[in-house]
Amino acid sequence: MKISRRGRDIQESPIRKLKPYADQAIAEGVHVYYINIGQPDIPTPQPAWDAVKNFDEKVLSYGPAQGFLDLRQAMADYFCNYNIPLSSENVIITTGGSEAIHFAISAVADSGSEIIIPEPFYTNYNGYAAFADVKIVPLTLSVEDGFRLPSKEAIEAKITPKTRAILLNSPSNPTGTVYTPEELERAVDLAKKYDLFLIGDEVYKEFVYDGQTHKSILEYTDIKDRVIVIDSISKRFSCCGARIGAVVTRNPDVNFAVLKFAQARLCPATLEQKAALSLYRMGMDYFDPIREEYQRRRDVLFEGLGEISGIVMDKPQGAFYIIVQLPIQDSEHFVRWMLTDFRMDNETVMVAPAQGFYSTPGKGINEVRIAYVLNESDMKRAIEVFKAGLDKYRTLFP
Amino acid sequence: MKISRRGRDIQESPIRKLKPYADQAIAEGVHVYYINIGQPDIPTPQPAWDAVKNFDEKVLSYGPAQGFLDLRQAMADYFCNYNIPLSSENVIITTGGSEAIHFAISAVADSGSEIIIPEPFYTNYNGYAAFADVKIVPLTLSVEDGFRLPSKEAIEAKITPKTRAILLNSPSNPTGTVYTPEELERAVDLAKKYDLFLIGDEVYKEFVYDGQTHKSILEYTDIKDRVIVIDSISKRFSCCGARIGAVVTRNPDVNFAVLKFAQARLCPATLEQKAALSLYRMGMDYFDPIREEYQRRRDVLFEGLGEISGIVMDKPQGAFYIIVQLPIQDSEHFVRWMLTDFRMDNETVMVAPAQGFYSTPGKGINEVRIAYVLNESDMKRAIEVFKAGLDKYRTLFP
Repeated sequence: MKISRRGRDIQESPIRKLKPYADQAIAEGVHVYYINIGQPDIPTPQPAWDAVKNFDEKVLSYGPAQGFLDLRQAMADYFCNYNIPLSSENVIITTGGSEAIHFAISAVADSGSEIIIPEPFYTNYNGYAAFADVKIVPLTLSVEDGFRLPSKEAIEAKITPKTRAILLNSPSNPTGTVYTPEELERAVDLAKKYDLFLIGDEVYKEFVYDGQTHKSILEYTDIKDRVIVIDSISKRFSCCGARIGAVVTRNPDVNFAVLKFAQARLCPATLEQKAALSLYRMGMDYFDPIREEYQRRRDVLFEGLGEISGIVMDKPQGAFYIIVQLPIQDSEHFVRWMLTDFRMDNETVMVAPAQGFYSTPGKGINEVRIAYVLNESDMKRAIEVFKAGLDKYRTLFP
Repeated sequence: MKISRRGRDIQESPIRKLKPYADQAIAEGVHVYYINIGQPDIPTPQPAWDAVKNFDEKVLSYGPAQGFLDLRQAMADYFCNYNIPLSSENVIITTGGSEAIHFAISAVADSGSEIIIPEPFYTNYNGYAAFADVKIVPLTLSVEDGFRLPSKEAIEAKITPKTRAILLNSPSNPTGTVYTPEELERAVDLAKKYDLFLIGDEVYKEFVYDGQTHKSILEYTDIKDRVIVIDSISKRFSCCGARIGAVVTRNPDVNFAVLKFAQARLCPATLEQKAALSLYRMGMDYFDPIREEYQRRRDVLFEGLGEISGIVMDKPQGAFYIIVQLPIQDSEHFVRWMLTDFRMDNETVMVAPAQGFYSTPGKGINEVRIAYVLNESDMKRAIEVFKAGLDKYRTLFP
């Protein structure tokens, strides 16, 4: 009984595969600080709960494949607030940003096609590339260069006749990098020159710090037919379990393909669409204190990590992650050891080994990703425990 | 800007593409009886609403990729009630039966592989086959034979070196056929002989009439490694908008592949899993009156249609659909005409043209699928209007 090649080869979640060790620590009564995944502790705003509790239909029935019109309109209005004029026609609601990635990749690429993605990248691109039998061509960035996008020539060198798209994730998970207009324009120019799609994963759009703003690839109107943006409410409104996202595009062929994909899975969940609508209706002021909160957390984390000798990192400009190079050999071994062997006052910390965020073998083996998703006080304590664990580990495994 | 081949070629929903004509009729103040899709009018049971309203966490956070353990256990217990001993380990929760289809196909088949499916079949198999670049090899059934499965030799003739699985949907959407143990055994024997997987879409398991019972392919324990069952709560508990399903398998390799697929999309929606758990906890008695209700509706429909001359049909044994061959040339034209031109006391009916349920070109062109998802009184009236419309249509387009 042989299963499919894709079923065999698809990567196990590098973040989730260490979960059993954390579960075991919890079972032993240890407190684990989870800064391995992007699950914020920010409360889901009350309007979402109210929308769910006030839903008063008798049958929880199918909605439209493309999502409810009022929610699509609310999402379009949200982009208009950023001076990106869109209509509801440009928005198709998906089951989380995850499904938006799947639909976007499938709409532009066939079996054997290639998509260029800077690495380290969000690991779930791997899963959807495997589903779609599409090859991810990594464009390797490095912590020493602050994960900046390389020159246009370096990107161009990755383009082959099989290339269908360049995917840029900004603000970036896992690096926290926010691409500058100059960096984005390298990709924009290449998309024009080589007739490519430009896919933007911009789900962390609100989380840009130090007074900077996020530039969306949707703002490059001269390539508007080439642009597909992946969106999600998971982080924006701290409701990861709602599974509501969107594919945003002004290309009618892509839009129609995504609609047909959407029809095949019938519809996104009804209740969470009602919740999402009420969240968008809160208005843009909601984001200011949230952004400030994350910026404080980032500062606490960056300052705390700065006291550790031998590490290499760059200050994240956005999202809520940082990639840190550690003075160790094997970060997966370290992360596991922290969960199985290290305790400080009966506490430990779970971070994510970074290797799974790279597709080039051997890359990221001495790096970890840390998510600053805990409040300042917990974050401070988590860094203390992390530092103590790292010190101990280096004496045991020098 | 060329999109992908799969994005271009994937079938538009044959059911949903006529929706704009229905919307137009509604806009004109016409009452439309929707018996085109499987959206029941049975109220979603109160425990589902209570579970959602009583959810009292502050953050709507990610759940486990494979779904919450208590729900997986409840689903396993549900199968145990049918004397199919399963554990929570055998169940992975999916975003609707739709995602379960996607995961099951992707776990057994690669690009260019083949899956044998009796036609007419649930149209969304087409969508997921296109996603996965897998070829559906149809095994054509016919209304004249009551959509019975053909002989073992006829099925065997469809098997090639590229065949990876046989998919059986019983009780069947769109035909209402429930396969007998003898029919199932033909597929079981061939799965053994040719080293194939057997995928069962058994989401209508409860809806079997006239005192008959449903035989699951999970009951064939000598091929338990080959069996994958697609499940869903959408019809079982009348909550199509919840998007909760499952992949059920005792094959550890398939299970692990599906888990990895599940990790790539993070998790199913949290709230609806809580709702689903409370629905399973109602116990098996819930189904008896529901089954009786659907049986009465079927009887009303079958009797009503029986008064129409020139039609060919077979009494459905399960699910809540019937395929009817009409004495007309082109059922899509007829369905559209009913929506745009026919009114009886300002009412009309929407049924589904059956062509989209076949993958063999030209098949089903004079057939429609009717879903008996309305209460008896509405169902009776819908049939009256349908009959009057058909009579009129035949005089206009003889």
